Amino acid sequence: MLLVADNLQITRREIAQAIRHRNPGPLRSYVMALQEAGAQAIDINTGPLGRYAAEEMSFCVKTVQDVSDLPLLLDTVNPVAMRAGLDANRKTAAINGISMEPTKLDTILPLAVEYNVDVVGFLLDGRSQMPRQLEDRLALALELFQRCREAGLRSEQLVFDPVVAPLIWEDGLHRNRDLLEIIRRLPEILDFPIRTVVGLSNLTTGQGASLAKQQVEKIFLCMLASAGLSWVLMDIHRRESIVTAHNCRLLLDASIFAWEAVEAG
Amino acid sequence: MLLVADNLQITRREIAQAIRHRNPGPLRSYVMALQEAGAQAIDINTGPLGRYAAEEMSFCVKTVQDVSDLPLLLDTVNPVAMRAGLDANRKTAAINGISMEPTKLDTILPLAVEYNVDVVGFLLDGRSQMPRQLEDRLALALELFQRCREAGLRSEQLVFDPVVAPLIWEDGLHRNRDLLEIIRRLPEILDFPIRTVVGLSNLTTGQGASLAKQQVEKIFLCMLASAGLSWVLMDIHRRESIVTAHNCRLLLDASIFAWEAVEAG
Repeated sequence: MLLVADNLQITRREIAQAIRHRNPGPLRSYVMALQEAGAQAIDINTGPLGRYAAEEMSFCVKTVQDVSDLPLLLDTVNPVAMRAGLDANRKTAAINGISMEPTKLDTILPLAVEYNVDVVGFLLDGRSQMPRQLEDRLALALELFQRCREAGLRSEQLVFDPVVAPLIWEDGLHRNRDLLEIIRRLPEILDFPIRTVVGLSNLTTGQGASLAKQQVEKIFLCMLASAGLSWVLMDIHRRESIVTAHNCRLLLDASIFAWEAVEAG
Repeated sequence: MLLVADNLQITRREIAQAIRHRNPGPLRSYVMALQEAGAQAIDINTGPLGRYAAEEMSFCVKTVQDVSDLPLLLDTVNPVAMRAGLDANRKTAAINGISMEPTKLDTILPLAVEYNVDVVGFLLDGRSQMPRQLEDRLALALELFQRCREAGLRSEQLVFDPVVAPLIWEDGLHRNRDLLEIIRRLPEILDFPIRTVVGLSNLTTGQGASLAKQQVEKIFLCMLASAGLSWVLMDIHRRESIVTAHNCRLLLDASIFAWEAVEAG
């Protein structure tokens, strides 16, 4: 399970200012800190469309890659900014992401094919909604898989995101139980060892005590890991969750066990 | 996931003394404390065969049921002691347990049928060994299931224990990954919603730092819960593991989520 930092977001004031002023210093320090904290990939979320969306994404990619070799996820709905990011990329980048939304299939998906990069496919329908029922979410995966293949994408390039629901949603519990099932069943349904990713921070958004949120995030992370999740997008500065992720990998992926390899948090 | 206390063991000095002197006081206090700590069932392990095995088991069952309504697991390999425990039982008791070992099939299994109680079936072969390969462990489940049915047991009475391997075993990691798979796949393989149980304390037996053990136990518990485990035999006084189990149940079984229901540990 690859740990992808979701921290590099334009919604953070310091990030927004560094981007606006094309000031690489703060961005570099921020990225070094993410790497230090355990990030194995970095999501670059440049947020809502601005006048300089393309230049901003390009600046971010260059700046991050000046100090880091980690793979990047380019997180924008703007195809012009996405292309600029892919052009700026000198190492490894992936597209985050597409769904059954027609504009995304028409404008973002072709970029994944053209640049031959990985792409996150959200299990959201044509209007960016998550179907309520498990079977509909699985059907959507099959449909999106088909569309991607038809567009010339290789199955290996696709990483499905079944989308975590906030627990405070009325049916959040139910949807997240289904999500575990989706992660487990997708490879069999698609007859391909398809990779999966989720954004963990979504789970605990909204009101709620921070200790309780921490507990629940850690537990759900273990469940996701054992369901076979490939990547997890998360707040890399939540130390306890990172320790949990490390230990999950030890239990699920390591070839040899040693108590010395366990992080006690 | 039902939490079964594994604490009531003859290997504990205070328990051994209370049993030897037929002194109900300490045993009662001990049981009350287990219940207080979150036990939902209690395993009574009277240990190696003694001269008074039957009287001792009978004394334990009576004493525990004087102060508690919790279901009991009668944990002995001695069929005479097992029968005595079943005779003493006035509430709910189960047999822990049987395997493909001929003496157990011949002497313990018939008691489950005669007394119409649940019985734990260990996935161990005729010599009480755990097969190394996943497929062999699954085949063993099918064989034991068949033998139990032939003996007149209803499928509903059987609770399979695929047996947790200590992580310090050379292939402990591998065996425990297979164990998660077994728990997930048994209902499909047996074409029946069969229940499962494991003894969690086995995972961390042997040397190792206690904080690291605590971390690993909690993580594996989440994985077991999401694999669909029905009962877990565990040290009820490991507070952090109990909190984790509570929160796992909230995420997996509750019908409504509220942050107030999360225990922060």
